[in-house]
Amino acid sequence: MASMITVHVDLGERAYPIHIGADLLGRTELFAPHIAGAAVTIVTNTTVDPLYGETLRRALAPLGKQVSTVVLPDGEAYKNWETLNQIFDALLGARADRKTTLIALGGGVTGDMTGFAAACYMRGVPFIQVPTTLLSQVDSSVGGKTGINHPLGKNMIGAFYQPQAVIADIATLRTLPQRELAAGVAEVIKTGAIADAAFFEWIEGNVEALNRCEPEALAYAVKRSCEIKASVVAADEREGGLRAILNFGHTFGHAIEAGLGYGEWLHGEAVGCGMVMAADLSVRLGYLDEASRQRIVRVVAAGHLPTRAPALGEARYMQLMQVDKKAEAGAIKFILLKRFGETLITRAPDEAVHATLAATVAA
Amino acid sequence: MASMITVHVDLGERAYPIHIGADLLGRTELFAPHIAGAAVTIVTNTTVDPLYGETLRRALAPLGKQVSTVVLPDGEAYKNWETLNQIFDALLGARADRKTTLIALGGGVTGDMTGFAAACYMRGVPFIQVPTTLLSQVDSSVGGKTGINHPLGKNMIGAFYQPQAVIADIATLRTLPQRELAAGVAEVIKTGAIADAAFFEWIEGNVEALNRCEPEALAYAVKRSCEIKASVVAADEREGGLRAILNFGHTFGHAIEAGLGYGEWLHGEAVGCGMVMAADLSVRLGYLDEASRQRIVRVVAAGHLPTRAPALGEARYMQLMQVDKKAEAGAIKFILLKRFGETLITRAPDEAVHATLAATVAA
Repeated sequence: MASMITVHVDLGERAYPIHIGADLLGRTELFAPHIAGAAVTIVTNTTVDPLYGETLRRALAPLGKQVSTVVLPDGEAYKNWETLNQIFDALLGARADRKTTLIALGGGVTGDMTGFAAACYMRGVPFIQVPTTLLSQVDSSVGGKTGINHPLGKNMIGAFYQPQAVIADIATLRTLPQRELAAGVAEVIKTGAIADAAFFEWIEGNVEALNRCEPEALAYAVKRSCEIKASVVAADEREGGLRAILNFGHTFGHAIEAGLGYGEWLHGEAVGCGMVMAADLSVRLGYLDEASRQRIVRVVAAGHLPTRAPALGEARYMQLMQVDKKAEAGAIKFILLKRFGETLITRAPDEAVHATLAATVAA
Repeated sequence: MASMITVHVDLGERAYPIHIGADLLGRTELFAPHIAGAAVTIVTNTTVDPLYGETLRRALAPLGKQVSTVVLPDGEAYKNWETLNQIFDALLGARADRKTTLIALGGGVTGDMTGFAAACYMRGVPFIQVPTTLLSQVDSSVGGKTGINHPLGKNMIGAFYQPQAVIADIATLRTLPQRELAAGVAEVIKTGAIADAAFFEWIEGNVEALNRCEPEALAYAVKRSCEIKASVVAADEREGGLRAILNFGHTFGHAIEAGLGYGEWLHGEAVGCGMVMAADLSVRLGYLDEASRQRIVRVVAAGHLPTRAPALGEARYMQLMQVDKKAEAGAIKFILLKRFGETLITRAPDEAVHATLAATVAA
């Protein structure tokens, strides 16, 4: 049997394990302790179901539960109320009760929507995350953020809601398109940059191995990213303060995603570029040295991620950042870097932000 | 200054006060401690805004906040995603940030939707309940249940989310239609029946005073109902066990509402009739004596509430009750009465339920 690492997310009575390893999807005993009721509904999408739906259903079969599957359309563009409602329709149509367990099988969009559906269905049913993308394994399956997009903003409607368990099967990443793998590497880079200089160095030395989908490198990257995120989330479950550092690169990144229309750039691509922009602003305001900024640009580029932002126009960038969830009364808050492993959260003078946009946005 | 009673709901860090009294709506100092951010959005409806919107806005004016108002269509038929989304549209259109306080000004539908909007907007913003119906003052503003209906079931989509404060202005009940006042009396009767025999007797002696909207009787009924509900909720915030007793009359009642189509009977009317049905089943299964059942029928009738259930057909009643949130794997759970102040939660043989339906449903 393949090796497995478990990271524990310590949230008191909402604590849960993250199991990381190859070929975990088929292991019945990983699911068994987390399914209390008589019914399970798998929520997945049209891309993932043909790849892994059957393996998961076979793993659940020995538990003797009533298992149903909801297959959603694939993509960030469908992370909306209409798609969410397909989950509710299926649950109510099947008379799913309050003890029904939802299993999210797919990437971040599937996980966010399934988690939000679990948070809201009958005011809360249990759910398990089975993330099948690198991005969702390192990021969106840890921390309990769930939600959907609104035409006026990303993840504007949602809940903090913790899963019973996360089962991160590294083997599922073999079928991941290169572009989506890179999007996950972006969050790995982010995690190293904000929290652990040694891990950031490890990423610089192993980014090619991650690009090539080497299992040992992936397992370590997922484990270390989950550990870091888990410790940040445990200290600040509802994003009162510390947790905001996880949004490094996201203020600019969300503006890119919203400005281009969700789904044009992948979230991780926008975050990759957003880190380059945040690093530029960090240097411009005197917090970060130029050599560190260059290291960020290099590792983002080595991860096959964009380092030039799309030409949306400066006014549009400012407008989009003002509606960001981190903004307060229209004042944009930036997560900036002092050095690898040390961040600060601050407003920035408009001139500096404009200069950063001028320096990083494609002509 | 008019007298005011305050009931404290003890939920640890989510504790909040319920202020009860006449003419509280205009008292700035009751709102001031609970509004931390720079903006307030009042959510109300087309009936209530012309009556009390201006009074509330005048009360808020001295606080120097940016105040906006969202006016929704009135009625249970609008307790759905489309209407909820009007709140999100308004908040995002106004770039409302995470510290924006929502104020629900209206009845249970307004409170449930506003509370759910507050729970979901940016994953949670603060809100204040200003209930303007007797039903919402005694029931839906206490306990943190928020949500919307789904075509296949009432309150199926929602969250447990506590307000910062509840301000129950008895004076607003003067403009309440008689039928809606009676719907509130139903929940008062329910609270007495399940939890406090002495209060049940008080209701029997004062139901006419409540019908006539006498302020002292109303204030006492609201206070005692809130105290009882608050103590039940404090013991069981997320409806693990005890809290379910608050659903006395609701299993049958929800079936009536869903079967007729939401909005046909008021929630309180359905609960009034549902209590008569639950009392019948309680006697039939040997838990309750016949004299107590008759007292329930009498006080429900004296409250101008229906005691005969609509003719939906037995099969439809069974089907509707099986999808109730309290059902588990299709098995219906009933909240039954042993005596005034003592309940039990149990399944019931189909024959007994059929007999109750035969005895209580109109021919």
